[in-house]
Amino acid sequence: MIHIDDIEIEKMEKIFRLNLINSITGYKSANLIATKSKNKGLNVAVFSSVTHLGSNPALLGFITRPDTIPRNTYKNIRDNKYFTVNQIHQDMIAEAHQTAAKYEEEVSEFHKTGLEEEYLDDFFAPYVKQCTVKIGCEFVNEYKIEENGTALIIGAIKHVYFDEGIQTPDGWLRLEDAGTVAINGLDGYALPTLLDRFHYAKPGQEIKSFFDKNNTED
Amino acid sequence: MIHIDDIEIEKMEKIFRLNLINSITGYKSANLIATKSKNKGLNVAVFSSVTHLGSNPALLGFITRPDTIPRNTYKNIRDNKYFTVNQIHQDMIAEAHQTAAKYEEEVSEFHKTGLEEEYLDDFFAPYVKQCTVKIGCEFVNEYKIEENGTALIIGAIKHVYFDEGIQTPDGWLRLEDAGTVAINGLDGYALPTLLDRFHYAKPGQEIKSFFDKNNTED
Repeated sequence: MIHIDDIEIEKMEKIFRLNLINSITGYKSANLIATKSKNKGLNVAVFSSVTHLGSNPALLGFITRPDTIPRNTYKNIRDNKYFTVNQIHQDMIAEAHQTAAKYEEEVSEFHKTGLEEEYLDDFFAPYVKQCTVKIGCEFVNEYKIEENGTALIIGAIKHVYFDEGIQTPDGWLRLEDAGTVAINGLDGYALPTLLDRFHYAKPGQEIKSFFDKNNTED
Repeated sequence: MIHIDDIEIEKMEKIFRLNLINSITGYKSANLIATKSKNKGLNVAVFSSVTHLGSNPALLGFITRPDTIPRNTYKNIRDNKYFTVNQIHQDMIAEAHQTAAKYEEEVSEFHKTGLEEEYLDDFFAPYVKQCTVKIGCEFVNEYKIEENGTALIIGAIKHVYFDEGIQTPDGWLRLEDAGTVAINGLDGYALPTLLDRFHYAKPGQEIKSFFDKNNTED
């Protein structure tokens, strides 16, 4: 096994370090966050840090840099409180990645990438029309991460949208059926295939699969 | 499309809501976090919230509940400062999921699940021997999320370990080659296959794949 310590990491060439450290924590969620500015300018950008925070109340979080790109997402959320989180699927990875290009301030990534905005149920922020799983969020709080100038943005889940066929009777969404991708590092897009789904673990008892007919819960 | 709003989410049966809200943010990283207590008790548990925070300094974060299970991970990190993050691979998903069982306080999940501890380079916290990508972290800070009683734990990356064959010349780790899985919801384990990897996006220029020989960077 290769071993690299923090002294060597610090000395690495910048892009090499970015690629390594962005890969070492495993696969990341692949979402487009979309916002609207006060003067109706639209913004959409890939985020790989969207994380489940809790179900009751239903909250999510993501990490952003208030002072750097994607520069407009943070400002729009702080100004207007609303944003949408849209799962990236396998047929749109090139369009999604293109949102990272540094467009001029007044140019919307929607119009430059082939992604289309969509408004649902009078929500202020636009959704991404091509996405099949989407969330409408309201800004709740922000925690500044003093260690590196990033911020954890907390959003309350106000609306969720998804295709009927991907939900199992116990509420779970089978993301494989939605064609949702995961991100490897900064720029790799991977398509997951479900290996197994397990029942709640109990001490001294073998793990039970949802798909083994002999292993139904008592 | 199915549309569910926050009022309906709040009224849902608890497990149904857990499954839905844990799936709606997309795939999550799949890691085992391992710690050691002052009296040498070992603890290992699945976490799906490990997130890249920054590369310089190299930092990661994860969400935990200080007051509930996995109860020992938080206490051990606060008491002793060190923990390890170990990517779950496809051959160990049942063993990994079994760590969620509620064992008695003095029982180590290592000895009950078939996972083995391993000590590397005199690091205080144990690694998971079966994992092929692992990180040694030092506790840096904690941000209490007042909205739901969780906490964001920040760790500094002190050591990384991985198999030589999975790294490309630009530092990126090809997680597919490590057999790393991603988590769908609370209990689904999925194996991603790389679809594509893209060069840095530029305005007005088509996205270039790393794997297209005609699309090499100038």
